[in-house]
Amino acid sequence: MAKSNRNTGPDSRPGARLPKGFLDTPPEDIRGVSRMLAKIREVYECYGFEPLETPAIEYTDALGKFLPDQDRPNEGVFSFQDEDQQWLSLRYDLTAPLARYVAENFDRLPKPFRRYAVGPVWRNEKPGPGRFRQFMQFDADTVGTDNIAADAEICMLAADAMEALGIKRGDYVIKVNSRKVLDGFLEAIGLIGEQNSKKRLGVLRAIDKLDRLGPNAVSSLLTRGRRDESGDVMPGAGLKDPDATLVMRFLGYENVVSTNPESSGYRKIDLPHEYRANETWLTWLSQHAKLGPSGQEGVSELREVARIAASCGYDEERIKIDATVVRGLEYYTGPVFEAEITVPVVNEDGQTVRFGSVGGGGRYDGLVERFLGTKVPATGFSIGVSRLQAALAAINKDKPAASDGPVVVLVMEKDRLADYQKMAQSLRAAGIRAEMYLGTAGMKAQMKYADRRGAPCVVIQGGDERAKGEVQIKDLIEGAKAAATIKDSKEWREGRPAQVSVKEDELVARVREVLARHRG
Amino acid sequence: MAKSNRNTGPDSRPGARLPKGFLDTPPEDIRGVSRMLAKIREVYECYGFEPLETPAIEYTDALGKFLPDQDRPNEGVFSFQDEDQQWLSLRYDLTAPLARYVAENFDRLPKPFRRYAVGPVWRNEKPGPGRFRQFMQFDADTVGTDNIAADAEICMLAADAMEALGIKRGDYVIKVNSRKVLDGFLEAIGLIGEQNSKKRLGVLRAIDKLDRLGPNAVSSLLTRGRRDESGDVMPGAGLKDPDATLVMRFLGYENVVSTNPESSGYRKIDLPHEYRANETWLTWLSQHAKLGPSGQEGVSELREVARIAASCGYDEERIKIDATVVRGLEYYTGPVFEAEITVPVVNEDGQTVRFGSVGGGGRYDGLVERFLGTKVPATGFSIGVSRLQAALAAINKDKPAASDGPVVVLVMEKDRLADYQKMAQSLRAAGIRAEMYLGTAGMKAQMKYADRRGAPCVVIQGGDERAKGEVQIKDLIEGAKAAATIKDSKEWREGRPAQVSVKEDELVARVREVLARHRG
Repeated sequence: MAKSNRNTGPDSRPGARLPKGFLDTPPEDIRGVSRMLAKIREVYECYGFEPLETPAIEYTDALGKFLPDQDRPNEGVFSFQDEDQQWLSLRYDLTAPLARYVAENFDRLPKPFRRYAVGPVWRNEKPGPGRFRQFMQFDADTVGTDNIAADAEICMLAADAMEALGIKRGDYVIKVNSRKVLDGFLEAIGLIGEQNSKKRLGVLRAIDKLDRLGPNAVSSLLTRGRRDESGDVMPGAGLKDPDATLVMRFLGYENVVSTNPESSGYRKIDLPHEYRANETWLTWLSQHAKLGPSGQEGVSELREVARIAASCGYDEERIKIDATVVRGLEYYTGPVFEAEITVPVVNEDGQTVRFGSVGGGGRYDGLVERFLGTKVPATGFSIGVSRLQAALAAINKDKPAASDGPVVVLVMEKDRLADYQKMAQSLRAAGIRAEMYLGTAGMKAQMKYADRRGAPCVVIQGGDERAKGEVQIKDLIEGAKAAATIKDSKEWREGRPAQVSVKEDELVARVREVLARHRG
Repeated sequence: MAKSNRNTGPDSRPGARLPKGFLDTPPEDIRGVSRMLAKIREVYECYGFEPLETPAIEYTDALGKFLPDQDRPNEGVFSFQDEDQQWLSLRYDLTAPLARYVAENFDRLPKPFRRYAVGPVWRNEKPGPGRFRQFMQFDADTVGTDNIAADAEICMLAADAMEALGIKRGDYVIKVNSRKVLDGFLEAIGLIGEQNSKKRLGVLRAIDKLDRLGPNAVSSLLTRGRRDESGDVMPGAGLKDPDATLVMRFLGYENVVSTNPESSGYRKIDLPHEYRANETWLTWLSQHAKLGPSGQEGVSELREVARIAASCGYDEERIKIDATVVRGLEYYTGPVFEAEITVPVVNEDGQTVRFGSVGGGGRYDGLVERFLGTKVPATGFSIGVSRLQAALAAINKDKPAASDGPVVVLVMEKDRLADYQKMAQSLRAAGIRAEMYLGTAGMKAQMKYADRRGAPCVVIQGGDERAKGEVQIKDLIEGAKAAATIKDSKEWREGRPAQVSVKEDELVARVREVLARHRG
């Protein structure tokens, strides 16, 4: 351990700070996330998924090199050596530990095995805006079946989760594609074999950026690369122009050349209305895009996903087949999913854009196989919890959060703490959130404290009130409203708005009235 | 990274296993813990505590050397270096991160600051039975006040949490002591100054083992040490016999010397009944035990805790002043608490003992000060989540958990997945947990699957039923009961117990009837 970690005296006090990329979560976010997770959990339980918790730490070799956003093994993972020199790592997602769990318990699990899991994961990466080194995922996976109905079910599950959170139909869409369609298309344009693997990766990477960068940038990335706003050069995949045109067409874009450079460039192909349904669009795709045999197989699978979803009432407004979905670069082998929030938000550049992805997933076949040596196909969906929370905040931005601060019992006579605590306790016993002030400050500071705590009211008993067997209840919300309209401080003191004297034994009932007034 | 962590081919597949001291949590435990945490959370919220989540990773120097069970700094902590060579550690408790948080946000926090937190913590220690390297804690702390009413409140909070979990009055007790009483007593018997610090530690360690080892072993540990059952020598604190007798008397034990060695040894001093109340017992303690000035101050504080608790209706049956409580060796400076479950359980040696501690805490003054340089007194209570869960399991061991498996829709015709999924979906839309079988196995294996899933019933539609527009509902719980009484397989087949044919559009209503039958 480095010397710098020791606190050797008052002159070398440690700094009270978090490492970059880590966050403390304040109460309102914790409560919001907790409500959100409970609703998702309810949907997943309803579909027969079982909860599973695995520890944060696994053997590094058991996690493997499947970090989805990385090409090099174990890069981006927090690792450390055990006392017996074995390497341990913090999990970087919930899928790798699931694969380890399934392999370890294979014989005793009911199969297919549906499980959901929620918890933090860690990435040892350079943090940036919206990019953290600890974040929470909420996953649902079905392991041990290559049944395409499992993929369809995952899409329905994702759609139900969005609606359970109050996201209206039309404000979200579950987009589905197939790796086989993408691979089949790349095959058909000649990108086959080991010698083209780098080129294929480049093309997939370029497609993956369509949402963020738009078609013209993607077209550059498919060919010679481009310089982004910061001046950094992003290398291209090295396709020839006619192949790039085919890729763009596959994505649904055609190049418009005009004498006016403003109107030149790629624009969306305007498909006739009858092709907007999943089934008809798939027919169009299989006829118009170069696909090859693997691609046609992908189309059949997507057709089955659409058919099952439709029979259960999920049409393309909710579950939409979309050839532009890539979802990372590693381990997916069949259908891939993306949950997109379509509500408009204003981005950093002041542009109005769709909120975008809050989660995704797909079919993967290699993860359990690497332990067992036999194929154990699986499919799953992962929600980025804080991303989804941000989406909900954007959707509900007009609805203020209810005040849920505790009733504060002020301390007027310091030798009567037991009496004040008893008042607070009588409120709590009635199910009312209440606390006695525990500091040493005077009346004014106590009122300020109650304000900062979001207290709906305070309870006051000084010597005068005690002599009469009474307590004062001061309604802080009503008081704040009154303060905004009363101009005169004399009028204020005389009126004592929103403050009532009640008998001690009426305390609970009268506080309840205040709460009912403000919290409905 | 060591070579052994790479998966280089099929002959060197990684083992699917967890590092020692880590556990996967199965669904029933997750659900049980989740219900338990929700109830505790409700109590803590009601007392005005606010939730806070801090990340798993902190700077090592920010966590400091306050690991409660260790004497050497940072031993027992998982640590690793950041890319800029700074040391990071996984948190080993929730108190050290709280201190960092309070120091970092001191000016903007309402003070006193009440917060609760629940989450995993990590210890890099040798795992053993019941001793894990990741476990969950649930903490409540009040920071920024030396008001003894805050300690009394923590005790009431702990008692309320126990009762909210359904632990009956008398089956738990919150035991309270004061470090000042212990320290004052040690002072009074001459264990003062730096030169006696090791001896003081030895005495506190011995007292801490009273519950587990009994008075005779503690008496040995106070003096010359002892050899435990495994033959290991546990060193003694090195007290002279008369001082050890004083310590034992302070703990409430006297030495009985008899010609019969069986009846010799330490036994509980039988206090007159009038000394059983907290107030009178404290009077007895301050009069009969050597205490010194600091000890008498501790007695006054405990008296105030007892007085506030009593005024709110918490007598010694729930909050009990107890001089034997030590609670670890580091950082506590005033009152210390322990939540004990008193219900009898049978231990590994076949003896019937009290279940014991499920949590504890106390007042600590140094944790925030080490960042800010100014005194920020605090007090708190920490629940060992899995320990409390084990206690609840011991208390509720006769009550079977309700079956909560999903209704399983069997797949009889493989080309009709969309129809079966639609049936499952119609059940889910009605709020019924339901799944379609996603595997490829035949009828018999599907029934076995449904059994393993704990399904209350299965839904079956083959060609015959379909032709009639009907489905079969087979009640698996009723069926299992019937199978236990019917002897003849012919009788079984003819009777088809617990299996009914219903019209397709009656599916939801009839499945509801089955569920109502079994889940009330």
